[in-house]
Amino acid sequence: MRIALLQMMVTADKETNLKRAEELVKKAAQGGADMAVLPEMFNCPYDNAYFREYAEPKGGETYRRLAKMAEENTVYVVGGSVPQIKDNKIYNTSYTFDRQGNEIHDYSKTHLFDIQVDGGQTFKESDTLTPGDGLRVFQTEFGLFGLGICFDIRFQSDWELLQKQGAIVCIVPAAFNMTTGPAHWELLFRARAVDNQLFMVGVSPARDLDFSYHAYGHSIVADPWGSVLAQLGFEEEIVIVSVDLDRVASVRRQIPILPPKRME
Amino acid sequence: MRIALLQMMVTADKETNLKRAEELVKKAAQGGADMAVLPEMFNCPYDNAYFREYAEPKGGETYRRLAKMAEENTVYVVGGSVPQIKDNKIYNTSYTFDRQGNEIHDYSKTHLFDIQVDGGQTFKESDTLTPGDGLRVFQTEFGLFGLGICFDIRFQSDWELLQKQGAIVCIVPAAFNMTTGPAHWELLFRARAVDNQLFMVGVSPARDLDFSYHAYGHSIVADPWGSVLAQLGFEEEIVIVSVDLDRVASVRRQIPILPPKRME
Repeated sequence: MRIALLQMMVTADKETNLKRAEELVKKAAQGGADMAVLPEMFNCPYDNAYFREYAEPKGGETYRRLAKMAEENTVYVVGGSVPQIKDNKIYNTSYTFDRQGNEIHDYSKTHLFDIQVDGGQTFKESDTLTPGDGLRVFQTEFGLFGLGICFDIRFQSDWELLQKQGAIVCIVPAAFNMTTGPAHWELLFRARAVDNQLFMVGVSPARDLDFSYHAYGHSIVADPWGSVLAQLGFEEEIVIVSVDLDRVASVRRQIPILPPKRME
Repeated sequence: MRIALLQMMVTADKETNLKRAEELVKKAAQGGADMAVLPEMFNCPYDNAYFREYAEPKGGETYRRLAKMAEENTVYVVGGSVPQIKDNKIYNTSYTFDRQGNEIHDYSKTHLFDIQVDGGQTFKESDTLTPGDGLRVFQTEFGLFGLGICFDIRFQSDWELLQKQGAIVCIVPAAFNMTTGPAHWELLFRARAVDNQLFMVGVSPARDLDFSYHAYGHSIVADPWGSVLAQLGFEEEIVIVSVDLDRVASVRRQIPILPPKRME
């Protein structure tokens, strides 16, 4: 299976962002990708000041364009995340579409990003966003996938749940920063991969120093052994990574740390 | 607080091992350590062929010598681990003593080390050992400590439990090998530190190529931010590491990922 990590540069212009996403998804499909993954908040700058302004209801412009990207390119599209408005509340939401453009997953970030690092990054998503109600898996032709958004990755019990539900690959649209990125980004992707013995895929926006929030970039794939199969820098770039899904069962056999699967 | 990591060379002669442990604990105390930590199976080669032969009941020679090391040097001694015999079963057991030589913790490895890595390390502790019944914390003058042994570190839910019980430092006598050591040793210590926001201390035997099992060494301390404060090589060596225990509360405040403490 081939997964494309689209580390796109997000601008303050939504239409520019959507067009750029369309170009990158097309490029990924042309490059042979089965699935194209966009970053967190790919249609909107990552800043509390923008989320409400850029938010759309489910089924809005961004949603429809994502479905079309999937259908036109016959590729799975994980639509990173976008601000969603629902009952006047704002969510950090990810929509995923299959190769026919049908929605197969809809998830809102559960663990809002509230940190205050002395002499480093401060952010409080809970000033503007409402949390979702938990991580879940979705079915693909390759097996079950899990998905969480950015700060969600810090909560291993949630990823353990996805593994127990049968996930063999977990996708994480994310935007770490220049404080937590160098300290924890690679560590957390490798650790979740090793603890749950599955593939972890992280996709970040490229870094734009003109915005208040400086994304770390470094979109990454870690395999079930914890090896880093690919990791980008901080500029706009895409990479298509071949993942050998048999590696999941192989590592689980070699280091049997997961409880035996119950027949359900 | 100052913790001494005693990465001792374990030989096939038990008395030599006990004498060496006594020397290293004394050296640690003279160097100002508050706690001295010995490695996994410090009185016995790490090999299924030796565990029964070297095993002692609780209160046996090794136990008494450990208590004496603590009392004579007025230092906490975490007695790595040793093979314990009880009801004709063998356990991989760790005894800890306070500065007066009183036992304050007694723990048998819960997750036995059964792995079979293609082209790499194979071991099956369950051929000879019986598992213990779960990780627990113990009280010290510095606060609550947790303890697990080697393969236990792969099970984050157990460390989460120690954190929830109030642990601020977790000690791990361990003997990774030349397959899993380079791949996962540092990763797992850093990940447990970051996920549970506490200090992780790992102490391995030095590497002896004359034995069948080649310990990775690399005794390590990771702080609650996931930074490696110290890491040794593979030869016999001790290091005394100062840990600033206030760092636990500080990191927990800056990245608030742990559920608020219930009053109990």
